[in-house]
Amino acid sequence: MANLSTCPPLTRASVVEAHGVVARHVHRTPVVTNRTLSAMASRAGTAAELEGTRWAGRTPAAPKIRLWFKCENLQRVGAFKARGAFHAVERLVREEGWVAGGGREKGVVTHSSGNHAQALALAARENGITAHIVMPTISMPQKIAATKGYGANVIFSGSTSAEREEVAARVMAETGARLVPPYDHPDIMLGQGTMGLELQEQVAEMMAEEARASGKAAAKRGLDAIMAPCGGGGMLSGVALSCEGTGIRVFGAEPSHQGADDGKRGYYGGARIPSVSTLTVADGLRTPVGAHPWAVIYERRLVAGMYSVTEEEIVAAMRLVLERCKMVAEPSACVPLAVALFDEEFRAMVEREAGEEGWDLGLVLSGGNVGVDAIGRMFGGTS
Amino acid sequence: MANLSTCPPLTRASVVEAHGVVARHVHRTPVVTNRTLSAMASRAGTAAELEGTRWAGRTPAAPKIRLWFKCENLQRVGAFKARGAFHAVERLVREEGWVAGGGREKGVVTHSSGNHAQALALAARENGITAHIVMPTISMPQKIAATKGYGANVIFSGSTSAEREEVAARVMAETGARLVPPYDHPDIMLGQGTMGLELQEQVAEMMAEEARASGKAAAKRGLDAIMAPCGGGGMLSGVALSCEGTGIRVFGAEPSHQGADDGKRGYYGGARIPSVSTLTVADGLRTPVGAHPWAVIYERRLVAGMYSVTEEEIVAAMRLVLERCKMVAEPSACVPLAVALFDEEFRAMVEREAGEEGWDLGLVLSGGNVGVDAIGRMFGGTS
Repeated sequence: MANLSTCPPLTRASVVEAHGVVARHVHRTPVVTNRTLSAMASRAGTAAELEGTRWAGRTPAAPKIRLWFKCENLQRVGAFKARGAFHAVERLVREEGWVAGGGREKGVVTHSSGNHAQALALAARENGITAHIVMPTISMPQKIAATKGYGANVIFSGSTSAEREEVAARVMAETGARLVPPYDHPDIMLGQGTMGLELQEQVAEMMAEEARASGKAAAKRGLDAIMAPCGGGGMLSGVALSCEGTGIRVFGAEPSHQGADDGKRGYYGGARIPSVSTLTVADGLRTPVGAHPWAVIYERRLVAGMYSVTEEEIVAAMRLVLERCKMVAEPSACVPLAVALFDEEFRAMVEREAGEEGWDLGLVLSGGNVGVDAIGRMFGGTS
Repeated sequence: MANLSTCPPLTRASVVEAHGVVARHVHRTPVVTNRTLSAMASRAGTAAELEGTRWAGRTPAAPKIRLWFKCENLQRVGAFKARGAFHAVERLVREEGWVAGGGREKGVVTHSSGNHAQALALAARENGITAHIVMPTISMPQKIAATKGYGANVIFSGSTSAEREEVAARVMAETGARLVPPYDHPDIMLGQGTMGLELQEQVAEMMAEEARASGKAAAKRGLDAIMAPCGGGGMLSGVALSCEGTGIRVFGAEPSHQGADDGKRGYYGGARIPSVSTLTVADGLRTPVGAHPWAVIYERRLVAGMYSVTEEEIVAAMRLVLERCKMVAEPSACVPLAVALFDEEFRAMVEREAGEEGWDLGLVLSGGNVGVDAIGRMFGGTS
């Protein structure tokens, strides 16, 4: 990882600069709309539907929400993580003395069993850099195979954070490899934020195009708000930076299961929660928010609110994404849609803030790495 | 349906005209690429892999194939059928005397349990026209619900062709509704063909964009070939018309199960096969090729070849589309990919015709209407 002292400032301009660096390596993933889901988001629930939920007894909110999905499930390696990894690696390559000092051969290292592992392996390979990936021995065989498939040197460890960090430290000591953490670093945050820039541009283009096609003046110039999943917060904070000064509000979405909503609890409690232990189905969001993302999300207040949903709501949203959007999205990626559809706090806020006009709301479909076997287990036998 | 005598000629220019009619009603669905699948299509199989298949003993072909997927699974109602239905309905509305004669109230009718039913219901509703849809009582409850959801008047029938046609005829006699068949009509063919135009344009744009981004001159200006699924042949023939005179070759892909490859057998046998009885997993492709499509596909030779694949190959391709493309596509939509990956006849032909250069091959992901319960049944318990 590039030295912190050399990192660009955490500003929208730095996100724009990061986009210039990563654009040739990553897909400008499509943005799609879906009338059925927008209609569902804009339909007030009934009192009966809220019975038996945590919203029982409330008057159902009646917001108007037009949804725009940013399809990072169609990103390289199947998730937005490619952006941060390419940005981090490109910055390393540009760091004075790193390549000359044998950096490419010494390589990069991370400990991850998820999308970051594959993203870093890919970014390293395309830059001719050795990648050492520390993975727990209990990782899913497909994930291990995929990471090896990108040419990485996979090293096994125990599954606790301490065990993984210990192995990563040993690899660094033995090889001189540089650590590239999954989210808690400015280079990663700026890289992930490039997706927010694209989403803003694409929606503005689509609105203009729609206006041209209908022969009317464009009613609006872009999004009112973006909601992104929050695990370690690298992507949420990057998206928030990409929106700074634009007037677009940014929200974070988390699972609530077993305290996975550390970001929300910290945000409203006034202090970052540094550790979490949860087995939420949204497995990409099991990590606590990192210190660097926290500074952007909470201290600088670039995120306007945090929301959380239940496991059942996440699975219901995933079914809708599969059946209505025709997209394979992993459970973590469906958390923002679950908030938009099911979280009465969020919905009441939108109704209040957006009024009759409603909001154009961007949702980040952050990744699509879920196997058909897992889909089969989640939905098999139901109808 | 508009009278045959008033139909535009079956030419590329008529497809362009149809596009002008339907473009404001349908999505310009995205085109996506996938490096992993292109690499798989470009990797020669091994003799061992061909053992136990119908290709055992052959030298594995080694074509170079770059795949471009046209995502009609993201089309309105989840399938390309929206194009033909909107075109047919718009043409009816323009037919002299039809609206004035009470056509909107008399309505339109079709017999279908599949995507055409929903597409016609939608197109009718958006034109303020009554839609009568004859569906077998054994249709899946979701399909019935979806069709009613688009405001159609659903009428039940027995499940044989004769029973369905009888009920449709009765509805026509009682209401004066006009029949809009699913594929065997020029207006439908021209409507479906609009997708082929977009695919050609989009790939050309993407190639030019790629060239700009890399600072090199564009190596090519567009596709070499397109492969589309073939059921009734309305879409395949429309795509073939959209390619006439462009030099782009068009191929049809079918399931082979229980004789579902009637198009291929007819094409190489010299005569259209008018009836088929198959329960292939590719349920959109269980119909025989219609007479009007046949004239384009076979008599005018606008389709350059027909290929077929097994049930296992279709399911394997569907798994790849789900896991690698992150797309929900119904089994019918995965048949062209199965041909590109597994049909040694097709692959040997590409190797021979395309040589070192390889081909840029457009594949039509024709629809995404498959529920998570069905996906669960197909893949549940496997890994």
